[in-house]
Amino acid sequence: MNFGITTIKYDHPFTTESGFTFPALELAYKTWGELNEDKSNVALVCHAFSGHAAADEWLSDCFGKGKMLDSSRNFILCINIIGSCYGSTGPRSINPETDKRYGSDFPKLSIRDMVRAQQIILDRLGIREVEFAFGASMGGMQALEFAIMDDRIKQLVLVAMGKSHSPWAIGISEAQRQAIYADPNWKNGDYSDDAPPLQGLSAARMMAMLTYRSAHSFEHKFGRKRQEGAGIYQVESYLRYQGRKMADRGFDALTYVRLSEAMDSHDVGRGRSGSREVLANLNIPVLIIGIDSDLLYPVAEQKELVSLLKNGQFTGLHSPHGHDSFLIEFEKMQQIIHDFRKTAKNFREVSLNSNN
Amino acid sequence: MNFGITTIKYDHPFTTESGFTFPALELAYKTWGELNEDKSNVALVCHAFSGHAAADEWLSDCFGKGKMLDSSRNFILCINIIGSCYGSTGPRSINPETDKRYGSDFPKLSIRDMVRAQQIILDRLGIREVEFAFGASMGGMQALEFAIMDDRIKQLVLVAMGKSHSPWAIGISEAQRQAIYADPNWKNGDYSDDAPPLQGLSAARMMAMLTYRSAHSFEHKFGRKRQEGAGIYQVESYLRYQGRKMADRGFDALTYVRLSEAMDSHDVGRGRSGSREVLANLNIPVLIIGIDSDLLYPVAEQKELVSLLKNGQFTGLHSPHGHDSFLIEFEKMQQIIHDFRKTAKNFREVSLNSNN
Repeated sequence: MNFGITTIKYDHPFTTESGFTFPALELAYKTWGELNEDKSNVALVCHAFSGHAAADEWLSDCFGKGKMLDSSRNFILCINIIGSCYGSTGPRSINPETDKRYGSDFPKLSIRDMVRAQQIILDRLGIREVEFAFGASMGGMQALEFAIMDDRIKQLVLVAMGKSHSPWAIGISEAQRQAIYADPNWKNGDYSDDAPPLQGLSAARMMAMLTYRSAHSFEHKFGRKRQEGAGIYQVESYLRYQGRKMADRGFDALTYVRLSEAMDSHDVGRGRSGSREVLANLNIPVLIIGIDSDLLYPVAEQKELVSLLKNGQFTGLHSPHGHDSFLIEFEKMQQIIHDFRKTAKNFREVSLNSNN
Repeated sequence: MNFGITTIKYDHPFTTESGFTFPALELAYKTWGELNEDKSNVALVCHAFSGHAAADEWLSDCFGKGKMLDSSRNFILCINIIGSCYGSTGPRSINPETDKRYGSDFPKLSIRDMVRAQQIILDRLGIREVEFAFGASMGGMQALEFAIMDDRIKQLVLVAMGKSHSPWAIGISEAQRQAIYADPNWKNGDYSDDAPPLQGLSAARMMAMLTYRSAHSFEHKFGRKRQEGAGIYQVESYLRYQGRKMADRGFDALTYVRLSEAMDSHDVGRGRSGSREVLANLNIPVLIIGIDSDLLYPVAEQKELVSLLKNGQFTGLHSPHGHDSFLIEFEKMQQIIHDFRKTAKNFREVSLNSNN
């Protein structure tokens, strides 16, 4: 049963790691299936950078009977992150204290802020246990932080990310932000509704697409073919289309800036006892899938993460499509997750038995 | 003996591949050493994207007695490419027909246009033979085209490039151009001298730096360290500095656009009988150095090139620094070139002997 998007109001102050206090939050989420009696059959999906709560749209092939997201078995929950432009409080939301859009007042966020906002929904729904949390890319950063911050998470499936955002990835974020800042409509984030900095946003998205895919996939798809009549290469035409598409679907430029900053903040060891100790203390089974053609978060990062976890398992996903493979190689990804969950479940049963 | 930069005027029409005719050209070059009697002791250096004719500045450690560029042995020549902003005719040059800067009238160029302009200098100097031509990155694209177009080139040393610009590399060029186009000062290339699109240029350069270096070198250099008091990561500070530096040294934004388009045009097979036949017909010894951490022009491209050449040799250069290693790993690069030139020379002598 599909409940559609639900939006709730959280009528309490919410203070970010950076020290900004929202007087209240709006939080959007979508669920599939039914919560069982002891509220422990939850499958939590954390969405990535440009995603939203309607996971059945961007992860459609993982939904269904016998698949990773099976609503006859699990109560599936996907919560739109704060800072987003797809329902939860973000830079274009109205600040109830000024009756104006937050704009440049909207604070820098961390992955942990996003998790804390999601915990509000778990609490509202009375969720006692999350059977497993799934996240890829920025979604994986949230899922990992979630498990560290909240012992309701009993199993993790992480794809294409690491224990922290690498300096190279931070640099890629920053170059994209600079393209947005170069747009005359940017106005430090206080642009009007009629004139958002779409050209800068589009340039940023084009740059991002180059890191989401691989040289090999571009070679295969475009080669050096020219775009008929346009005087440009097909790959240029494709990237311009991708840039325009991001602008056309109303993605907000300040959201782009704030979410990329949040990814840059990702570091499970930050302000704690260091990533080594934090990860060693995480007891639940964790599957980490690395994509062999991923440039942005190379496989070495997933292997490092596994090496630091008490109960981690690395599985490589072979694909020519680069980082975005998690949105393309559904079948391979599901098979890996299926195999893991079977073993991890046995592992848990064995553990419980051995405690008897 | 250092002649400094020489600038000559070529007072004849010069028509580009795209069909634009310059009424005349200015060409800047620098030489070291003396031309021998039969004008055959030339070492030709082709410079890369942001380079210039003063090769002793950006390739300093390759100059000297017994080194690759030895002015006691060779007459060393480096010619500033057309389209540049460092002496030869470029977008900011005055069009003698309008007495105004070319600006947006400045045509798209190809690597072959650049080579043809350099041939003017070789002809002026009466050069009969180029003992070897060296080029890395865009310089390598020129050197390879030079050898295909001009049988005066007797040996080639190419670093970090391929037989054509890959669609992924074209995409990276295009995303950088889009960052420049997003700058309000861009004005389609007809910006004023007082207000060039420096912010867009700077964003483009930042993006480029990410592809010139490697994730590993950033990890080593910056880690996740913060810039004291600036509220940003050190890697962001470094990239912003690199962007500003490009703007501060007066690099021209339209030059950036036109040179990147020229790289995109690179394809030795274009308009000929295809790269396979063109390369199979190149008889001279060619050394191709690939850098194992090069993301932009990965080693597979150099190996492909070698596989298509009659007399090519691949040698890998191991470095953590990525594409830019040719501006960093002078010692390793020179050793590889030294070994090759010794063998290649013997090879040539053997060939000549066997022809007797």
